[in-house]
Amino acid sequence: MSEQKLEIVKTEDKKPKPETDQIPFGKTFTDHMFVMDYETDSGWYNPRIVPYEPLTLDPAAMIFHYGQTVFEGLKAYRAEDDRILLFRPSQNLQRLNRSSERLSIPPIDEERVMYYLTQLISLEQDWVPSTQGTALYIRPFIIATETNLAVAPSHSYKFMIILSPVGPYFSGGLKPVKINVEDQFTRAVKGGTGTAKTAGNYSSGYQAQAKANKEGHADVLWLDGVEKRYIEEVGSMNIFFKINGEVVTPELNGSILNGITRMSIIELLKKWGIPVSERKISIAELYQVYEEGGLEEAFGTGTAAVISPVGELNWLGHQMVVNNHEIGELSQKLYDTITGIQTGKVEDRHEWTVEVQ
Amino acid sequence: MSEQKLEIVKTEDKKPKPETDQIPFGKTFTDHMFVMDYETDSGWYNPRIVPYEPLTLDPAAMIFHYGQTVFEGLKAYRAEDDRILLFRPSQNLQRLNRSSERLSIPPIDEERVMYYLTQLISLEQDWVPSTQGTALYIRPFIIATETNLAVAPSHSYKFMIILSPVGPYFSGGLKPVKINVEDQFTRAVKGGTGTAKTAGNYSSGYQAQAKANKEGHADVLWLDGVEKRYIEEVGSMNIFFKINGEVVTPELNGSILNGITRMSIIELLKKWGIPVSERKISIAELYQVYEEGGLEEAFGTGTAAVISPVGELNWLGHQMVVNNHEIGELSQKLYDTITGIQTGKVEDRHEWTVEVQ
Ligand SMILES: Cc1ncc(COP(=O)(O)O)c(C=O)c1O
Ligand SMILES: Cc1ncc(COP(=O)(O)O)c(C=O)c1O
Repeated sequence: MSEQKLEIVKTEDKKPKPETDQIPFGKTFTDHMFVMDYETDSGWYNPRIVPYEPLTLDPAAMIFHYGQTVFEGLKAYRAEDDRILLFRPSQNLQRLNRSSERLSIPPIDEERVMYYLTQLISLEQDWVPSTQGTALYIRPFIIATETNLAVAPSHSYKFMIILSPVGPYFSGGLKPVKINVEDQFTRAVKGGTGTAKTAGNYSSGYQAQAKANKEGHADVLWLDGVEKRYIEEVGSMNIFFKINGEVVTPELNGSILNGITRMSIIELLKKWGIPVSERKISIAELYQVYEEGGLEEAFGTGTAAVISPVGELNWLGHQMVVNNHEIGELSQKLYDTITGIQTGKVEDRHEWTVEVQ
Repeated sequence: MSEQKLEIVKTEDKKPKPETDQIPFGKTFTDHMFVMDYETDSGWYNPRIVPYEPLTLDPAAMIFHYGQTVFEGLKAYRAEDDRILLFRPSQNLQRLNRSSERLSIPPIDEERVMYYLTQLISLEQDWVPSTQGTALYIRPFIIATETNLAVAPSHSYKFMIILSPVGPYFSGGLKPVKINVEDQFTRAVKGGTGTAKTAGNYSSGYQAQAKANKEGHADVLWLDGVEKRYIEEVGSMNIFFKINGEVVTPELNGSILNGITRMSIIELLKKWGIPVSERKISIAELYQVYEEGGLEEAFGTGTAAVISPVGELNWLGHQMVVNNHEIGELSQKLYDTITGIQTGKVEDRHEWTVEVQ
C-alpha cells in the first residue's frame, strides 16, 4: 500500500448545506466521500476522494448475503476559534481493525487511513457545523464485494468514509430517558460478535427496540445472553451507574463493545479521584441497590449523545426511578467536560483531540 | 399488492451456458433476475423480471450498516423426462417470512412470490442443467435500502431472486468429511438470530471455519452458546447421528435453523419406521456413545449437499471416527431417496415436488 497516492476528484455540483440545528441524524451527506479497494493479490489500493455517489454492486456481492462488514462512528467538532477537532480518532481506527479481525476482513493501515480521513474532512470543512451540540458525523465502513454465493471470506472489499452533519442529540439540554430491561431477546454472547462493530449486531436488536418503544421506553438495556442476569449495554451505548458514591460499569467481558466514550469516562473519573469499577453487575443487584436507596445516577455513553442520563429503568414490571427523573450532578459534569474537550472549550490534558489542518 | 402485474423485460444479450458438471458454486448467474420493491406507504410493488444487472445503492443504504437482510436457498432440478421440479419451495417462502419477522422486515405474499419464482424459472429453463447431481440454485433475498444511518428498521426494501447453475456437491459419489467441534466461538444463542437465515449468522462463523480448515477439517460443528455442551448444527447444515439403531438430531431449540432437508428426513424416517428423536444431545454424550461403540452413522443435511456423511469428528483432541470413514447404509438410502424424489426418479408420495410449467 505504501506507494499509493491519494487521488482527489472534486465535484462540480456542490449541495446546499442544511440548517444544522434541525436536521435529523444520518440522512444528509456531504459532497465527497473516501473510497479504497482491496483484492487479495494487491492489498488495499486506489485510495481516492470522489464526489458522493451511489455504489454499483452485483446482486451476488457477498455483503448482501453473508454480512461480512464492519463500521465505525466518530465526529468532527467545530471549536469556538473555528478549528476542527476530532476526538480520539485513532481509537476508532484501532477498533475498526479489531472488528475486522473478528469478521475475517483484512486490516487497514491505521496511519494512512488517518491521513485520508483528515484530508477528506479538510476538503469538506465547510460542512462541519458550528451551532452548539452539532458536529460532522464520520462513518468509515468496509464491505465484502466479491460476486460469489460461497459461504467464505470475500477476496475483495471496499473501504469507504462518508460524512453527515448532525444536529444536537438532545434539543434543549440533557433529557433523562426511560429504558426497558430486555429479558427475552439477546444481543450478543461470548464467542459471538458482540465486541465488534458489525452490521448484524444492530438489526438483531430491532424487535426488542420496538417492544421497548411500544411501552414508552427510548431504548433497551441488554442482559448477558448466557444467564440473562448480568447487565451488558444499551442500544448503541455503554452503561454506567453511580451506586453509593462509586461508579460501576460492566466489565469488557467478551460480548459488549469497548466504547471510546466509556474508556474516556473511566480515565476522567480516575483522574478526579472518584471510585470507578469495571465489574459484573447483575440486574438483581441493581434492583436491590435501588430499593435500598443507593442508586444515585445512571447514564448511557456513546459518540452520538456523549452522555444520555437514564431517568427510569423497567425490569419485568419493577420500576426504578433514578434521581427523580433528573440529570445527576456527575452525569452533567462528565457531559460538560467531554463536550468541552471535544469543542476546545476545556483544556485537553489527555491529548484526546486531533486538529484537522 | 393484489393489482400488481408482473412486468417482464427480456435481455438482448444472452450469456453462454457453462459446463455444469465443472462450475464452482455460486459464481455464475443466469440472464434474468426477479426484483420487487417495498415502501412503507405502498407495500411491495413493481414486481418485475429484468436482465441480470448490478444494483445501484447509496453508500448510506441501511444494508451496508445494520445488516437488515434475510435470504433463502433452494434448487430447481431437471428430471429424466425433462420436467423441472422444485423441492418444497413453499417451505422456503414460509421460512423467509419467519426470518423477516425476526429482522423486522415486512412479509412477502407467499403465493404471489411462488408465482413470480416459477415464472422466472420458466423463463430461464434452459439454465436448469441435466447432468447427475447438478441443479439450478435459487437465491431469494431481501435487503434494507433506505438511505439513513439511524439504527432503526428501514422504510424501504428490495426483494430479489437470482439464479445460479451449480455442479455436483461431491464429484465422484458421497465423501465423508472431517468436522471440528468448535469450543470457543459461538454461532447463535437463544433470543438471538440463529433461527433466521440472515447474513450476520454466516460471516460470524468464518474464524471458526478457518481454524477448522487449518487442521484439515471441512467444517465446524457448533455447540450451544450458553453452556458449550449441546450439539447444534454444522456450518450450513443440520446434523444427525445414528446411535444404536436410533436416529438423533438436535431439537429446534430457538438457536438452530429449521432445515427443510432435516424436516424431510425426519418425515421419511418416521414413514420407514426407523426410530428418530429430536432432543438435546451433548457432545459428551456423543463421545461416550462413540467410546461404547454405539455411534453408527453421522451426517449433515442441507439443500447444498442433501446428505453430507461425517467420517470423523474432533472434539478438544478427542477423535471420533465414524463408520470407518465410510458412508453409512442409512445415509446412502436417505441420499438416494431424497435426490430421487427431487429428480423425479423416486415416486413422490409426500407431494414435496412442484413442477414448473
Ligand atoms: C453497541 C454499541 N455500544 C456502545 C457504543 C458506544 O461506543 P463509543 O463510545 O465508542 O461511541 C456504541 C457506539 O459506537 C455501540 O454501537
Ligand atoms: C445455518 C444453516 N443450517 C441448516 C441449513 C440446512 O437447511 P435446508 O435443509 O433448508 O437447506 C442451512 C441451509 O439452508 C443453514 O444455512
